[in-house]
Amino acid sequence: MRLYERLANDLEGLIRDGTLPAGARAPSIREFCRERAASAASVVRAYELLQARGLLESRARSGFFVAGQPARRAPRSTPAGSCRRPWHVEVSQLIFQILESARQRDALPLGSAFPSPELFPLRQLGLHLAHVGRHPDPWHTIEDLPPGNLTLRRQISQRYRLAGASVSPDEIVITAGALEALNLALQVVTKPDDVVAIEAPCFYGCLQAIESAGRRVIEIPTHPQRGLDLDVLESTLQRVPVRACWFMTTFHNPLGVTLSDAAKQRLIQMLSARDIALIEDNVYSELYFTRKRPRITKVWDSRGLVLDCGSFAKSLAPGYRLGWVAAGRYASDLWKRKITTSLATSVPIQAAIAHYLSSGVYERHLRRLRRTLARQQALMVAAIRKHFPGDCQYALPTGGYQLWVELPEHCDALSLHERALERGISIAPGPIFSAHQDHRRAIRLNYGHPWNAASETAIARLGSLMREQMQSR
Amino acid sequence: MRLYERLANDLEGLIRDGTLPAGARAPSIREFCRERAASAASVVRAYELLQARGLLESRARSGFFVAGQPARRAPRSTPAGSCRRPWHVEVSQLIFQILESARQRDALPLGSAFPSPELFPLRQLGLHLAHVGRHPDPWHTIEDLPPGNLTLRRQISQRYRLAGASVSPDEIVITAGALEALNLALQVVTKPDDVVAIEAPCFYGCLQAIESAGRRVIEIPTHPQRGLDLDVLESTLQRVPVRACWFMTTFHNPLGVTLSDAAKQRLIQMLSARDIALIEDNVYSELYFTRKRPRITKVWDSRGLVLDCGSFAKSLAPGYRLGWVAAGRYASDLWKRKITTSLATSVPIQAAIAHYLSSGVYERHLRRLRRTLARQQALMVAAIRKHFPGDCQYALPTGGYQLWVELPEHCDALSLHERALERGISIAPGPIFSAHQDHRRAIRLNYGHPWNAASETAIARLGSLMREQMQSR
Repeated sequence: MRLYERLANDLEGLIRDGTLPAGARAPSIREFCRERAASAASVVRAYELLQARGLLESRARSGFFVAGQPARRAPRSTPAGSCRRPWHVEVSQLIFQILESARQRDALPLGSAFPSPELFPLRQLGLHLAHVGRHPDPWHTIEDLPPGNLTLRRQISQRYRLAGASVSPDEIVITAGALEALNLALQVVTKPDDVVAIEAPCFYGCLQAIESAGRRVIEIPTHPQRGLDLDVLESTLQRVPVRACWFMTTFHNPLGVTLSDAAKQRLIQMLSARDIALIEDNVYSELYFTRKRPRITKVWDSRGLVLDCGSFAKSLAPGYRLGWVAAGRYASDLWKRKITTSLATSVPIQAAIAHYLSSGVYERHLRRLRRTLARQQALMVAAIRKHFPGDCQYALPTGGYQLWVELPEHCDALSLHERALERGISIAPGPIFSAHQDHRRAIRLNYGHPWNAASETAIARLGSLMREQMQSR
Repeated sequence: MRLYERLANDLEGLIRDGTLPAGARAPSIREFCRERAASAASVVRAYELLQARGLLESRARSGFFVAGQPARRAPRSTPAGSCRRPWHVEVSQLIFQILESARQRDALPLGSAFPSPELFPLRQLGLHLAHVGRHPDPWHTIEDLPPGNLTLRRQISQRYRLAGASVSPDEIVITAGALEALNLALQVVTKPDDVVAIEAPCFYGCLQAIESAGRRVIEIPTHPQRGLDLDVLESTLQRVPVRACWFMTTFHNPLGVTLSDAAKQRLIQMLSARDIALIEDNVYSELYFTRKRPRITKVWDSRGLVLDCGSFAKSLAPGYRLGWVAAGRYASDLWKRKITTSLATSVPIQAAIAHYLSSGVYERHLRRLRRTLARQQALMVAAIRKHFPGDCQYALPTGGYQLWVELPEHCDALSLHERALERGISIAPGPIFSAHQDHRRAIRLNYGHPWNAASETAIARLGSLMREQMQSR
């Protein structure tokens, strides 16, 4: 055990035995360094660990405080009928701790949010970038200001038509990736303190965006197999002044679940009746393993209430930072907002992707990518069947590259994450996908990286760690 | 006179003679179309014109209302001693109307915020982009996440050292252009309703960012020759809880003025004593015409309170959207904020600019660019001397590409803008640089475009329009 872990465990002991009760001030970093003759780096790391365990809170300029009695931190379920009130979110600190650990270069990235960059035609795409570089058009600097490069918007509009949605190039606004798209959409359709309905669990970027923007959330339970609970949504809309929804109805992150066509249609009817905007995070919809492309909510959106946010990051060009919003009635507000927050999206990047799409090879690349991801999913699931305890639960997504696994009783995702990271494996623990840090008995695993012996070993190790957790209770 | 102008003038008549008093509802667009047998497009344009003239206001879902008695719209000066209280800003609508007009393809862009893209080595830069395209490194997708590409941050850090400021690569965060840099800086150092001290006049992007973020402003008068009034700032800091300042102390936009070294030093002392952050919009500082590079506030910032925001857009690569913040003590908060709002800056763009800078030709390009801009300034000033009324006032900036011209009595910048645009000339009227729409007797002219006969004619036309305005009163 490393020094910082020992320091953390000792302090945890003081909290658990009540020497440091909930709300008490923890020793300052300086005091603790002196007391234990430890370096500041070790103490800082110990405090971070205790924050990740939910035992300490830092308050700006005041130091560290005990977060609450350990008993309070037991897994909390969110049954569909439970009473929920809108609230402001405070999640970023935990998420950042987890994300940073997933960036460790040598860790096996099962907790990563990204697929392997090796799955993408970066070399081929680079040739289109090179073409654009050799033929610069100075006037694009002005012409490609928001809403963005027209050729590119036409190409994206055509892809919507393939998906059965009639989206004109005029309602598309090019952005620096989907995350900017989603943030802009949120800013355009809501004001501070407005209530946004979100899924529980949901993509942590959604929680961070809402926290940054000072909106409130109301969580709608989302089931790993059935998806968003529309009955709860309906009753919520009746009693809470929801201003907008932020959902992922196709290949949900982290659950992987997709709403049925009928459910999507019902959702749109429900929101249309109340004039509520839907921010749809649709970044995985090209990555389907089924024979037929899934239909998206935009297909039924006759009133322009859906802001469908897409990106090439997961399907073509990670790192290029190119996304868009099909913003319906909000298109003009959206591109103005874009102008005031980041002015424009990189002109050569817009031109390079437009040039690539026009070359007609995108569909072939996508077919190959879908096959690869489906195969990698099968390999990971086979390893899980072999190595994980029998009572692990998971549902097979029909697209994307993330698998949601519910752990056996007595397992804890946050401490599993810590232990796994010590063994060079990153995982995404359930609590980072929740405004309440729920889902402590679930993890998200990424199968977007080429499968090899190290992957198999990592799954086996995770299985052993789970068994250790089950036995130590 | 075009139809929409006639419609606007007729409605203006009804407002001026009191038929439609302040606060009264204006006819709806549909009613007015029917009444005048005009197309919706003409009526919409007429209403936009009346909004630009400050006579009509649109209220969401309610239609148009008379803004106030025309008498209220007389130019309002902001003497240094006047009483000022912090307030929320609402400026974006007017700014967008003006910006949109400046985007007209055929208009001579004296009102543009951008220099001519032809002044930049886009072809040479494109070769570096092509190089990056042909040699993609998949792992950069992860490694160049915020704070950003290390080679690039080292290059930028070296340029700070040339300017006399010791800025380590660790405190630099790469952004998608300076506007994102400034917005992130604002979000990191302030909360909603906090008071931000700004210059008056100031860059309209500052007003828009503060409006979007829901912060309040307090204006500090800024003189075309002496710059920011530090005495007023000092007394303001004594009575108002200013949380941060957002200033341009080098080649101020729109005034062009630069604070002296002594004044910059006094400013930093004043803010350090109160622990107030300075968001420094420093996008023009490479464009100096003097023999010596101007010193920047960061030089004296020993406490890490300056967030120096820079960009390659004005000096090297318009349209690439690459900027940065040297964020001092806020660096870690800043790159985390960047991750939650736009995840990362385009990887190939970061790599291409880093590759260009490493090639060692940037300084040569800059020397040429500075000479060109200085020459174009001299040509514009010669034309102004020849064609503008004698009582126009202006001070010669020692860098940048914008000239602030104060118009003779009885001239009005907003109506000059309208008239000029009808003649194919865009200008930037003073009111877009003010939270109160002050500076109605000033315009900003851009000399960042190659000087030619059309430029000369445009200046001559502007002179005639001013004389017409003077005579019609």
